[in-house]
Formats: sequence, structure tokens, C-alpha cells
Amino acid sequence: MATGDVVLGENQYGKAECRLVRVDREGSTGSTSGKHRITDLTVTSQLRGDFAACHTDGDNSQVVATDTQKNTVYAFARDGIGAPEELLLRLAEHFTTGFPWVDGGRWEAQQHSWDRIEVGGEPHDHSFVRTGRETRTTLVQRDGDEVFVLAGLRDLTVLKSTGSEFAGFPRDRYTTLPETDDRILATDVTAWWRYAELPPGSDGSNGFDATYAAVRDLLLETFADLHSLALQQTIFAMGKAVLEAFPGIAEVRLSCPNNHHFLVDLAPFGLDNPGEVFLAADRPYGLIQATVQREGEAREPRAWATVAGFA
Amino acid sequence: MATGDVVLGENQYGKAECRLVRVDREGSTGSTSGKHRITDLTVTSQLRGDFAACHTDGDNSQVVATDTQKNTVYAFARDGIGAPEELLLRLAEHFTTGFPWVDGGRWEAQQHSWDRIEVGGEPHDHSFVRTGRETRTTLVQRDGDEVFVLAGLRDLTVLKSTGSEFAGFPRDRYTTLPETDDRILATDVTAWWRYAELPPGSDGSNGFDATYAAVRDLLLETFADLHSLALQQTIFAMGKAVLEAFPGIAEVRLSCPNNHHFLVDLAPFGLDNPGEVFLAADRPYGLIQATVQREGEAREPRAWATVAGFA
Amino acid sequence: MATGDVVLGENQYGKAECRLVRVDREGSTGSTSGKHRITDLTVTSQLRGDFAACHTDGDNSQVVATDTQKNTVYAFARDGIGAPEELLLRLAEHFTTGFPWVDGGRWEAQQHSWDRIEVGGEPHDHSFVRTGRETRTTLVQRDGDEVFVLAGLRDLTVLKSTGSEFAGFPRDRYTTLPETDDRILATDVTAWWRYAELPPGSDGSNGFDATYAAVRDLLLETFADLHSLALQQTIFAMGKAVLEAFPGIAEVRLSCPNNHHFLVDLAPFGLDNPGEVFLAADRPYGLIQATVQREGEAREPRAWATVAGFA
Amino acid sequence: MATGDVVLGENQYGKAECRLVRVDREGSTGSTSGKHRITDLTVTSQLRGDFAACHTDGDNSQVVATDTQKNTVYAFARDGIGAPEELLLRLAEHFTTGFPWVDGGRWEAQQHSWDRIEVGGEPHDHSFVRTGRETRTTLVQRDGDEVFVLAGLRDLTVLKSTGSEFAGFPRDRYTTLPETDDRILATDVTAWWRYAELPPGSDGSNGFDATYAAVRDLLLETFADLHSLALQQTIFAMGKAVLEAFPGIAEVRLSCPNNHHFLVDLAPFGLDNPGEVFLAADRPYGLIQATVQREGEAREPRAWATVAGFA
Repeated sequence: MATGDVVLGENQYGKAECRLVRVDREGSTGSTSGKHRITDLTVTSQLRGDFAACHTDGDNSQVVATDTQKNTVYAFARDGIGAPEELLLRLAEHFTTGFPWVDGGRWEAQQHSWDRIEVGGEPHDHSFVRTGRETRTTLVQRDGDEVFVLAGLRDLTVLKSTGSEFAGFPRDRYTTLPETDDRILATDVTAWWRYAELPPGSDGSNGFDATYAAVRDLLLETFADLHSLALQQTIFAMGKAVLEAFPGIAEVRLSCPNNHHFLVDLAPFGLDNPGEVFLAADRPYGLIQATVQREGEAREPRAWATVAGFA
Repeated sequence: MATGDVVLGENQYGKAECRLVRVDREGSTGSTSGKHRITDLTVTSQLRGDFAACHTDGDNSQVVATDTQKNTVYAFARDGIGAPEELLLRLAEHFTTGFPWVDGGRWEAQQHSWDRIEVGGEPHDHSFVRTGRETRTTLVQRDGDEVFVLAGLRDLTVLKSTGSEFAGFPRDRYTTLPETDDRILATDVTAWWRYAELPPGSDGSNGFDATYAAVRDLLLETFADLHSLALQQTIFAMGKAVLEAFPGIAEVRLSCPNNHHFLVDLAPFGLDNPGEVFLAADRPYGLIQATVQREGEAREPRAWATVAGFA
Repeated sequence: MATGDVVLGENQYGKAECRLVRVDREGSTGSTSGKHRITDLTVTSQLRGDFAACHTDGDNSQVVATDTQKNTVYAFARDGIGAPEELLLRLAEHFTTGFPWVDGGRWEAQQHSWDRIEVGGEPHDHSFVRTGRETRTTLVQRDGDEVFVLAGLRDLTVLKSTGSEFAGFPRDRYTTLPETDDRILATDVTAWWRYAELPPGSDGSNGFDATYAAVRDLLLETFADLHSLALQQTIFAMGKAVLEAFPGIAEVRLSCPNNHHFLVDLAPFGLDNPGEVFLAADRPYGLIQATVQREGEAREPRAWATVAGFA
Repeated sequence: MATGDVVLGENQYGKAECRLVRVDREGSTGSTSGKHRITDLTVTSQLRGDFAACHTDGDNSQVVATDTQKNTVYAFARDGIGAPEELLLRLAEHFTTGFPWVDGGRWEAQQHSWDRIEVGGEPHDHSFVRTGRETRTTLVQRDGDEVFVLAGLRDLTVLKSTGSEFAGFPRDRYTTLPETDDRILATDVTAWWRYAELPPGSDGSNGFDATYAAVRDLLLETFADLHSLALQQTIFAMGKAVLEAFPGIAEVRLSCPNNHHFLVDLAPFGLDNPGEVFLAADRPYGLIQATVQREGEAREPRAWATVAGFA
């Protein structure tokens, strides 16, 4: 115990949460007419490599300033963004090839979605309203020449008002929960999937965007369709549906709170409550987390190294 | 100064943020098949009246417990909710007529909206996804027999990527802002409107619900359509559109941050930036607040007494 | 109904949440040695006056840009800050006298407190740690030549583990709460007080700072000392203590959630629970709000016009 | 690609954020007099083991309900808590030995600190005020008979108003940041340390509590004392100081945003700004993360498996 010298272990640094909005204008450059498209991202860039001298001696000669990383994010957006995964891949390439001592890093983005405002039944050219609660997420990690791409979403809040049971669980001294054959099931889905193979057409961004949209729909449909005996069963089915539909996706990780809705006991007031009035609780909440993967396929711990929270 | 005895002034108390979800089941009671409808509210109930003895002496004989107020919210939901305004009006009636010393109060609700999940192109019977960022808000205040009803929304986030200018403002020693004839205009709309007359059909809830939906759309359309010379002009136009369309609405109050999007200076990197790459700033932000009302019509300060923040 | 023309009512606009940190350096200007003092504020400036043309026609010729207001906040900090009330009073004077059409406004600040880090038992000269959960708040409103000054705090979280009862309340059909003669009482105090007379020495900032510190301590001591029969009784006593100690304070408003701590029923596990194990609940919570004032003294609604939330 | 069957990978489930407050009463049980002590925790319990049948078939026969886990947390608190690490170790032992198919899990707690309110210069027996911004954190993970204990803190917000430089960094096409020999350095420290050996006296809780307090002070002192050439240098020094002082601690991980404070350019207003007036920015922010460890000592990836965010 306490034998070795104190040394630097794994480390990374960069600029977090660069808020970037890009406007793509149809027609001539700078045009205020025509149809606009907006891309709204929060981008984080972090570098890994040989930064020991900075930590031990305050020698910054190899420290690409976090301010420089931020500038690079905005400058790269000038050439267009495409899918968020594509911007991150370009940033990863730039930093790992541009500075000999940078041999990897992590680049992350959240995409915030906007719909067009409808005016007179027609989508407006340049006016938008933020929609949806979920946020699209992307994480690119690079270790030398190896590149790992995760995509996902968070805060996709769903609820089914029936079609969910919970029974047959073991009972011990501390068990008071009654069994139920009909309850509300509600959760906020956080999902990450790993691309073993980049989606077809991803050079033109359609691959990542189209896959994202399809996975999101599949998660929703599976949640809706499955008669659920446990939230575990539901999230495994969600992950399985994604893997079966997308051969290029190697694994899916899901983290889902069980947002409890308790049937209110109205009997003291002389009222019944046939599954109608519920109290939506805040805390504590169940928390169910699982990885769904392909048998025999290699894990890639480096892809998941900095992903928060679960197994 | 400091002459009079210390006395109790205005006061109110109750239970805040009761999280209430009601499931309406088509067909037989307790049915798990058929189409479900969910209503998701956060309800606050607060009473006013003669509560001086509690404050000065700890005499609780007239203090309707906040726990009782909560129970009443859930019990009343048993009979159906309708529009959130209708539930609040029933609660107001109950408390002010049921306890002689309660002569008023405030009842507030936020409604959280859900869409049906689509499966195979069809809306699912009992599976839902939270949509939209905005929250519908309702406030009923009662003073004796007088009832005031406000409705509104908050966190309706909108952006236009062109069609907004800001110029012609005065310049003093501290002015550095350049004029612009093309900028991004972005805000999170908070709006409240006061019903001088309850909307037609409001006994069956369609009035409040239909009016809410129509006002929301009108706010969005006006934001989109107006070529904006100032955010002040935009919000006045939004309020005006509502008053012109709904004669039963007496006044509209709007509170809108100016969520600044700064054009990034890419010149140091040898790049131009023809209105394409923006930094979305957090703080500080502009904050524009206005009341739009009808000339000659009486104000109703009691309707607005506890509404946060602006003029 | 719906007769008059649509007109602009009350309105205000400005820059919100300017994050300002000032370093006061002892000794020579720009000195890095010697003892430093930091003042950490979040400042909002909003103007009122004749801004109708901007709202109705987009005419900005009288619109002091929110960016200019922000610049002014930082420029004024160059001359020193003093108590936050003093900075706000200077800003109010500047804007209402500098622009003929500006006849009032509201200026608000939160102050975030820092302690010196102790090194070897000695407070460090220029290293600080954020302390406390509460935030000091200040609001100056001006209407022509009349100036209203509020001071306060929020998020002062307190708890007493005994010395609190709740009993004797009325019971109706919806009442299930048992009476208790010993409970946990916990709240997050929000308080505002109005200075009818500025505190002595306030020209040198000691008045406001000293009064703030004394009021905060008095609120805490009263909370601790009073054997509470209801949270209403506690907050009235807190306000009363302040008014009795400070003749220059005309009224106090308090808004206090009742942060429920429920005794956990351990009987199903064969355990008793003699007031030891509690579940701290999130929502719903009680919400108790009261004004404590001096009999016969005039109310000043303009001082409270934009203060959120309560009576 | 896409060859293997879809199978369950790593998974865990449980109850998150059980809000638990325990009152320790001096003297006779249930006593309302005498000195009280409160322990305020947010506890999460998650189990790992053979839960495949639940995921694939909805078979709950081995699923210890999350409600049961919650009940167990509260029941165990009945016997006293001690240090939060000790409660978690007891929970880990209970679940992994009580259910044959549970072979591991993670148990996490945050501790919220309270000070006694002072009345007349004396600490009150049973009245408390929440203090400090930082939260003490604890994580116990168990894999069969192997137990890993992490302790830490988050949101320890510190600032030094001088004694910080940043210069000598490489300049490329995207670098615009000027060098500085005097800046504000501010951060919110998140730290985790791993106990290779439980602290002496930890059976009576003094070990964990005393170590926590000493590490916290050491982090603060090191931050204050070091003349910083880079935030990286500061956090390495902080970790190093901990390892040198505590031979039972094997490694320290730190994650620290660089909360930028920009000197405001007052020149346009005809004012200088000799290091006095700063704008505290929100986003983006630097993010510096590092592990400080002992040379030659084994890593324990299972200890860190679910710790959010960094290398």
C-alpha cells in the first residue's frame, strides 16, 4: 500500500457545451428569402494524449487551448454540419492528425430539434418551434486510428395507461408491494447504440439521420406494442428490436427510470377508483438499465468509457 | 415610522404541485381495452380568509389542512376533470362555500401534453409520448363571489432565422451594439390571458380547450408572420392578434426573453460568415414584457395579484 | 365586451441576469498581492416609460438597447459596488435622469456569497469557497422620483427535528391527516422586506450589509426558538421579530414551503420507529405565505408590483 | 456483422434516490429534549446477478422488487446509519448474501450537510440550517466477494482572484486566446477517491467521516496555495496531496470545469479595468479531468464502472 510514486493516470480536457446554431439558406448565400434549415447543437470537444508535463509542471507547450477547440468547432461549422456524427468525426480527425501528441479524444453533441411553424396550414420558410422533449445525442471517441461512434437519445418520455403488469416477484421480510395485473408504466428513455459499421449513406448525412429517426420510432413502437410483465422485459425488447432491424448496430444500452404512478386510495372519501386517478411520484423511482448485444461479438469498452451511469 | 402594532397582512396557504394523472377509459369502467385518454396536471390549491389566529396564536381550528386540500384535488378528479380551468373552478367553489371563513383563494394548474404513439401509422389506444416543450397554465382566483380566470402557456420556444431587424435605437456613452437589418430572433414565450367572459361551450370543456389551442396557434403564426423591427413589436402584435380574435379575452400579458444568437466572427480564421454560424448565448438575455389590453376597459388587479414577474 | 381599441398597457424591458464579479484589491491598483475582496452579483435592469411607438410601430428611437443597459451595469461596477442595493440605486438614478422618456424601472440583484478558504488556520488572501445555500436578493423599483427598496433572501433551508406540532385543525369528508404533537418542520425560507427608511450608514454600504446580516440571523433564531404549532405561526413570528428590531423596515413577506418529512412505517418489518427514520418528500408540499406589517401604515403596491408569487 | 443471437449483456436495476433523514436523539428513546443529530441522505440501491429470465420472458421470480430495496434502505436506517459508506456496505452485504442469484450491485449515497443554528451564540439542540454547496458522495460496488468503496464530493465551488496564469500554449490557425499572467481561476470540484484500504476506525464511522473532512480541507488548501500555471496543474496537485496524505487511498479522480471569468473591456466607455470587473460566463466552459494514481498499482475498473463522465 502507498508504495509507488504519484503519477498521472487517464486524463482528458477540452471545451464543453459550445452552443452552435447553423442556418442553411436555400438559394444565394446570405439570402433572407427562400427556405431555411437550422441545426442546433451543443458540442463538447476533449483531447487525450501526452499532457503529463502540463499536469506535473504547468508546461502548456502541448496544451491546445480549450478556447482553440471551441474556435475550431465554430470554424468547422462554416463548411456545413450534416449529421452531428459527421461533424464530430471531422473534429476527431482534425485534432488527432493535426497535433502529434494528441492521440485520441472524445467529441460529443446533443441535437435540439425544431419543427417549422405552420401558418395557414403551410410550413413557414424560416420560423421554427422547438418540439419534442427528447434530445438526440452523439458521442465519437478515438484512440489512435480507431474510431468509435455512439448515437442515442435521452428524455424520451413515454407512458402506457394499461398493458403493464408486475407480479410473481419474491417476497421477503421487507416486501410489502402488492402484485398488480394492471398498472401505468411510464419512463424517460435514455438509449445509446454503437455503430459497428457506419450506416449506409452516412457520407451524405442521410445515413445517421435516417437511422436515428428509425431507431427512435422503433423504440416507441416496441414500448407501445409489448404487453409488459416488467420494465426489464420492455427495455430488452426495445433493444432487441433495434438490433434485429439494424445489422450495423452492435449493441444497445438503455437506462429507464420507472416513473411510478400510484393509484390513489379514495376509499376514505367514500369513492372507488377503478384505475382512474393516479398520483405521479417524483422520488424514489425505479431505475432499470440493461445492455442488449449480439452473442459472441466483442465488447468495445473504449467506446463506452465515458458514458455515464450504467453497466 | 415604526409606530403601529405588528399585524398580519395578506396571506394564503395550501398544497402546491399535486401531481395528478387521470385515465379516461372508453367503454366499461376499468376497461383495459378500448381507447384511453390521459390528463396530466400539476395542481396547487391555496386558501385565503380569516386565518389570523393561526398566525398569531397557533390556533388551527380554522386551518383546512393542506393535506385535506390535496385529498380534495384527487377526490374531485374522480368525477372527471374536463379542462383544467373547470377543475379549478370546482375546487374554488368547494372551498369558498364549504368553509365560512374561507372567502377566497388561488388555484393553479399546469397541464403536460401527451401525443399518442403511432404504431404502423395508427395512433395507439393507450400508449403515449410527451410532446412539445410548452406547458399549458391556468390560474383561478376567487375573492368572495368574484372569480377571475387566467389561462396561458410557458416555455413555447420559437426562433426565426431571418425577418428580424434591430436599428434606430439611441446611442449614448455606453452604447456599443451595432445596428442590424438581419438577425436571428429567438424566445421562450410565456403568455397569460384573462377571460372577461368564459369561452362558449366551456361547461363541456371544449371552450377552454379549443380557445387554448387557437390562442397557441395564433401566437405562433403571428411570431412567424411579422417582419420584426423589435421583439417589443412582435409581442405586442401577438397580444393584439389574440384580443382581436377573442372578444371574451380582456387582456394578454407576455414575457419573452430575447435569447441572443451572436454571429460568430470567423475572420481570424480566414473565413467569412454570411449569416450562417451562430453562438447561442445563455446569459445575460434581453427580457421584454408587455400587457396588451382594450382601451377603456377596467383592469382587474385581483386577477393578476400573484402572477409572477412583470408589470 | 371587446369594445375598445387594442392598446399597450404596462410594460418594461431590459437585460436580465448580467453575471458580474468585482475584485477589490487592497493596496496599489492591479495589485496581485494583498488581501482581495470579491463581490459576486447577478444583475437585472429593466426600464419603464414611453415605449409605445416601439410596440406599435417598431420605432426604436427611444429604446435604450438592452445591450446598453448591460454595458452600463459593468461600467458602473468600475467605480465600486458597495452593497447591492447601492449599485441598483445608482443604476435607477442614471436611467431615470439620463433619458427623459424613462420614468421608472426595476433593478434587481442576487448576491452569491463566498468565504475565504482557510489555509493552516488562516483565511487566505485571494482564495474563496462558495458557502451557504441562501442567496441574498435586492429589488429597487422607481416610479418618477419615488424609489422603493426591497431586500431579501431565498433558499435559506432550515429544519427542526422536534419542537413542532400540528393539531386542532378542522376535519371534513376529505380529511385523513392525523394530529401530531411532534414532527419535523423543514422549509426553504424566501423573505422580502421593504425599507421605509434606508438603514443608517447606507451611504457607505454598511447599513444595507449589516441589516441583511442581522435580519438573516433573526430569521434563523426565531425559527429555532419558537415551539411551533403551525408553520403559519412560525413565519408570522419571524416577520414580527424583524419588524420589532428594525423600525426602518415597514413590512416583511415570507413564502415558505412545508417540506414534509414523513415518519416511515416500519411495523411491517417488525420494527418500531420512535421518531427516528423519515422519508423526505418532494411533491406535493405545503406552501405558506404571509405578509407581516405595521397597523395603520400605508401599503406600497408599487414596491411589490413585480415580486413573484404571493399575496 | 449482425451474426450472433441477441442476448442480454450487463444490467442492473433498483431504486434510485430514496430520500432518508434520520434523527439521533440523545438520552431516552423518542426524547424531544436533549441534543439531536440528523443524517440526511439520498440513497440508491441497484442489484446485479441472474436476471436474464425477467428481461427475456418477463419472469419476475428472481426480481427483488425495487420497492423491497427501498423498504430495506429505510429498515436498515432504524439500526443507525453511521458514515454513509457503512450503510451502503451493510446493504451490499444484505443483498448479495440474502439472495443466491444476486452476485453484486451498486449502492450510492449523497449526504447533505446541516449546521446547527446559533441562538445567542450557542448552537441549538435541534434546529439546523443547510450549509455549504458541496455534496458528499459515496459509491459501493460489489462483485461477488469483492467490495469497492469510492468516496467523493461534488459542487465544491472555489475561486481565486489572482495567482493563476495561462501562457505558453501552442498557437494554430484557430488560436485567438491571448496569454495571461493574471486571471481569475474558478471551478466546481467533483472528486472521487478509491479506498484500497478502509480508513482506520471505520467500523465506528469515524474513519470515513474523518477522512472525508480531511480530504475536503486538503483539496481546498491545495487549490488556494498553488500558484497555478494551468487548471490541469492545480487538479493534479490536489490529487497528489490526497494520495500523499492518505496511504489507504489508491487513486483520485477529479473533474473540474473552468468557469471562465472574462475581464470586461471598458475602454469603449473611456474606462480602464485593472483586473477589477469581470463577466462570469455560463457556457461554454473548459472541462479538465484527470486521474492521479500510484505508479505500478493495479487499476480497478470495476470500482469505477458506473461513475459518470471521465477517463
